Amino acid sequence: MNACEQSLAPEAQRAPAATRPPPVPAAADLPPQALTHGSAFDRWLLMKLDAALGSPQVDFAVRNGAHAGAGGDSVARVTFADRATLLSVLADPAMHFGDAYSDGRVSIDGDLVSLLESVYRAGRRAGRRASLLQRAITAFRRPHINTLSGSRDNIHHHYDIGNEFYALWLGSTMAYTCAYYPTPSASLDAAQVAKMDHVCRKLRLKAGESVVEAGCGWGTLALHMARHYGVKVRAFNISHEQIEFARARVARAGLAGRVEYIEDDYRNISGHYDAFVSVGMLEHVGLRNYPTLGQVAQRCLGGGGRGLIHSIGRNYPARLQPWIEKRIFPGAYPPSLGEMARIFEPWDLSILDIENLRLHYAQTLRHWLELYEGASERVRGMFDEKFVRMWRLYLAGSVAAFTTGTLQLFQVVFAPGASNDIPWTRAHLYTR
Amino acid sequence: MNACEQSLAPEAQRAPAATRPPPVPAAADLPPQALTHGSAFDRWLLMKLDAALGSPQVDFAVRNGAHAGAGGDSVARVTFADRATLLSVLADPAMHFGDAYSDGRVSIDGDLVSLLESVYRAGRRAGRRASLLQRAITAFRRPHINTLSGSRDNIHHHYDIGNEFYALWLGSTMAYTCAYYPTPSASLDAAQVAKMDHVCRKLRLKAGESVVEAGCGWGTLALHMARHYGVKVRAFNISHEQIEFARARVARAGLAGRVEYIEDDYRNISGHYDAFVSVGMLEHVGLRNYPTLGQVAQRCLGGGGRGLIHSIGRNYPARLQPWIEKRIFPGAYPPSLGEMARIFEPWDLSILDIENLRLHYAQTLRHWLELYEGASERVRGMFDEKFVRMWRLYLAGSVAAFTTGTLQLFQVVFAPGASNDIPWTRAHLYTR
Repeated sequence: MNACEQSLAPEAQRAPAATRPPPVPAAADLPPQALTHGSAFDRWLLMKLDAALGSPQVDFAVRNGAHAGAGGDSVARVTFADRATLLSVLADPAMHFGDAYSDGRVSIDGDLVSLLESVYRAGRRAGRRASLLQRAITAFRRPHINTLSGSRDNIHHHYDIGNEFYALWLGSTMAYTCAYYPTPSASLDAAQVAKMDHVCRKLRLKAGESVVEAGCGWGTLALHMARHYGVKVRAFNISHEQIEFARARVARAGLAGRVEYIEDDYRNISGHYDAFVSVGMLEHVGLRNYPTLGQVAQRCLGGGGRGLIHSIGRNYPARLQPWIEKRIFPGAYPPSLGEMARIFEPWDLSILDIENLRLHYAQTLRHWLELYEGASERVRGMFDEKFVRMWRLYLAGSVAAFTTGTLQLFQVVFAPGASNDIPWTRAHLYTR
Repeated sequence: MNACEQSLAPEAQRAPAATRPPPVPAAADLPPQALTHGSAFDRWLLMKLDAALGSPQVDFAVRNGAHAGAGGDSVARVTFADRATLLSVLADPAMHFGDAYSDGRVSIDGDLVSLLESVYRAGRRAGRRASLLQRAITAFRRPHINTLSGSRDNIHHHYDIGNEFYALWLGSTMAYTCAYYPTPSASLDAAQVAKMDHVCRKLRLKAGESVVEAGCGWGTLALHMARHYGVKVRAFNISHEQIEFARARVARAGLAGRVEYIEDDYRNISGHYDAFVSVGMLEHVGLRNYPTLGQVAQRCLGGGGRGLIHSIGRNYPARLQPWIEKRIFPGAYPPSLGEMARIFEPWDLSILDIENLRLHYAQTLRHWLELYEGASERVRGMFDEKFVRMWRLYLAGSVAAFTTGTLQLFQVVFAPGASNDIPWTRAHLYTR
């Protein structure tokens, strides 16, 4: 199902897709705005919103009232249930659009991803001049709440909402990070396996080596490394639900002696390893803790070994989209490469290779969104309509963020600065 | 010839290698230090120097006098002509060792590259604790003298000392930047050609496209791109000697209509191009000008196209070795990746790929040093013994800097942030 061939009415959403009645806006029971002075004011407000967003290819309307926007060029129409909703979104589009959409006070006709792509692109054009000021503000507004207990709360908020929920749309690997598609037509599951192999080859894992993983999700990569590369893995995570899932999984696989899942913070990692790997954790580390993460990696590797950090990033420092930060990922922050350097530079860790895979994350997210839409009835059963819409917006917005270059995906390979045990070229990644 | 099977006496150096008499120190005509109280003091000074350098695997001695150091473990012996030289080097080893070596007041028994590697490694061990302070000092001491006229003076100092001189040891390509060795056994010339192809493939050049090159050296890459990739190139350089050489070369190749060499600063580049490339110029740009360089690249590319910057770098910010900065490369500064980010981040340029090729630069420099030593007679004829020694030390020190990880070599591929005309994977670099 397309992300945006969607209805607003909770009752309509509960019907199976095939028998679903035509979209009935949730706002339909509200009194229509009179097409009088009020409508002219609404139209003025809509035009203000359109301008504030940099004039995306989007039509804006108030239910049964005024409209404004791109007209024939539009990729989608956004309809506000009432003036109060419009005023709220106009006051803080980045925060209140998401809430109003989740609550059903905003409806979308057309493709949600295309709509959000257009909004991101227009924002980029409009925002270029403001970017220096924005960055100065960003420096003071970043969420720095990833203390040991703060991180635990933040991670619990997102990752402990239920393994069954994630199993509905992550595919069979339960890997909740950017996949690697050898070709754009690869399947999600194949691309997740290819990503793990890409990571293992970048780390040049050899049988008998030891690996420490910081932030192991549901344990997929650790299991893959032990099974296919013959290494021993200690994998850390502070999400209780994920650790429980991972432990059950490794026991079923008969590899419990090779993979140890540890419910603890990366800051408490001890020991010495041949490889340090962290896939999709850095987003939750917080800028202030980057030197600590680097120190942990350096301590784990000693004077040799290899490391890899895989993370969402940015072309330049900017705060995470505030609605996503508040509702979906508290404490998350995708860094620029200049910021990521703070992990490595204090410890003379040498960056050997950086690959930007942002279009692969867009593709991964498209696949997740498709599975999510297909499972939306079950999601609604587990939670409620608001949750369904909130996570739809998050997934669709993430697709748009990666297709428009608003977000990046960096894989960084590094080694202790004094080590010459580094690959001569990268050809080994591309030849079997 | 090995870099360090060398004599100190100018007269001895002028003899052909085969008939050369055994090393006769230049300091031999100085009165030997009496082995009395003076010798004990010299020994104390030598031990201070050894400690200051972090106790490298090196023996230190004063001519006909005291000695100290690694003893049986040493890779080389450094002999000071007299106490005055020793005191001078002790006062500021980083600056005065190079001068004393160049003047023949310091002689080396053993391999010069191994000696310098040991000194770099020991310095890394000793310097780790001081690094925060060092970085604070560095922030205030960086050479920021790359104004338009300052850059011209700095570039003239190094690159305009004579094309014939460089032709003696750069190999047939006259490429004065890190080569790319598909295998470690590749020849210098083959590796320089492979480097150019690696760059062109990273830029995904197609026939008929336009390329601008910032800092083109003797024009080798521009010529290669025009000849083998069918592109039109405008190549900028402020070294008059290099531009003259490049123009003569492109005329001989019958490609003058395809490559335009322009004697001007990168800051004056205008026009729109499919690709922006800069190989080995960033070292001379100066940190303060990084945003300007990025602005030039962004202006050249508009909303599309591809860029590549190839530069010596660092694992963390640090001043260039001060003797090299003063005697060899005034105004030069190899940045960390965190510092390089200042080129890209202000302009929403997206970093797609970074490759660290430092071991390739060590190999390139070994090849240059070998050719240089083979041509030392001719270099002495062009200049003098002091020049021969100065450049030997620079080349040997550069080998050591790259083998020990003191310096890095980064190739950074980038594109405008909004462009999706970016490669899906990097496999195309490794398959023909």
